[in-house]
Amino acid sequence: MPVAPAHSLEALIQALRRLPGVGAKSAARMAYHLLQRDRDGALQLSQALVQAVDHMRHCERCHTFTEAPICAICQNPQRDATRLCVVETPADQAAMERTGAFAGLYFVLMGRISPLDGIGPHDLGLKKLLDRASDGVVQEVILATNFTAEGEMTAHVMAQALKARGLRATRLARGVPVGSELEYVDLGTIAHALAERR
Amino acid sequence: MPVAPAHSLEALIQALRRLPGVGAKSAARMAYHLLQRDRDGALQLSQALVQAVDHMRHCERCHTFTEAPICAICQNPQRDATRLCVVETPADQAAMERTGAFAGLYFVLMGRISPLDGIGPHDLGLKKLLDRASDGVVQEVILATNFTAEGEMTAHVMAQALKARGLRATRLARGVPVGSELEYVDLGTIAHALAERR
Ligand SMILES: [Zn+2]
Ligand SMILES: [Zn+2]
Repeated sequence: MPVAPAHSLEALIQALRRLPGVGAKSAARMAYHLLQRDRDGALQLSQALVQAVDHMRHCERCHTFTEAPICAICQNPQRDATRLCVVETPADQAAMERTGAFAGLYFVLMGRISPLDGIGPHDLGLKKLLDRASDGVVQEVILATNFTAEGEMTAHVMAQALKARGLRATRLARGVPVGSELEYVDLGTIAHALAERR
Repeated sequence: MPVAPAHSLEALIQALRRLPGVGAKSAARMAYHLLQRDRDGALQLSQALVQAVDHMRHCERCHTFTEAPICAICQNPQRDATRLCVVETPADQAAMERTGAFAGLYFVLMGRISPLDGIGPHDLGLKKLLDRASDGVVQEVILATNFTAEGEMTAHVMAQALKARGLRATRLARGVPVGSELEYVDLGTIAHALAERR
């Protein structure tokens, strides 16, 4: 049970614990560090949090984070609009971009199907993806969700729904090591898996 | 080399990287998590940072973090004012308090001697400690710095300076495992080491 914050230090430690992967001891260390050695950093982080919450929205076309209604990639006329790559997160999208092997557009799910967390296809905007892929320009939807159990399930569900609409869905080749998350895979492996997509 | 932040998401990721133990990938995950799933948490953290920076100061007697000029422990007349326990951080002080084995007062160094980081005895308030321990009430200064190389060096330097002033300095018994940090030691070991201090 959370204890009522005795003072602003306790409140800060509890607020830091809401960050993913940060337990009680890490949160305390972070708070002490900021107050003792980096008060400028604390104020900068405070500002950055408010700014990001105020300004970041989702791209109307691909759903990734952006400050404009449409993100820079979706706005870029040089990108190949016939290929749409579906990824779980902006971090996965960034990994894909770093390979330099994909010139198409993206659809960012901002998650994955996860029955345990109560996240189903509709929470991930499946309908929005189907509409996006049915624009008459997209010829291939490349499913680049992670090769974890949840990512595979997500790809399977998306593939079924896309094929039911007569759309072509491919999957990154299984060159990506099973059980791993795209963000942590080396670029050559991702590029190879992209070339051999099935 | 840091890249100029493209927008508020980049700025947030860079601000999160100033937290100790947070690298580029962790910072990105934290930012995505806050923006996607916990915007309330982001705003709460922003507030908590400003509040803590505004309100937290150092106790005039023991130097720990407090909102009042004198902290609650230093103000408590039930504490044994003849024993003064020197620790590196508020986290170490909290670990000592949790043992329930120490009824005296504290002096919190807010660091340790670290030649590599350019932190010497005077940066840790050695003179302030000597003045504090010379109040005519303190009869024993218990050096409870960590049993790391830097903590041992800090204890050694403090002990020399205290003894030169005719003050009694003791050290936690070496029951605390060598190379470990107090914060992570089990309470029984700390209590035992306190009882066998030399
Ligand atoms: Zn977009
Ligand atoms: Zn105090």
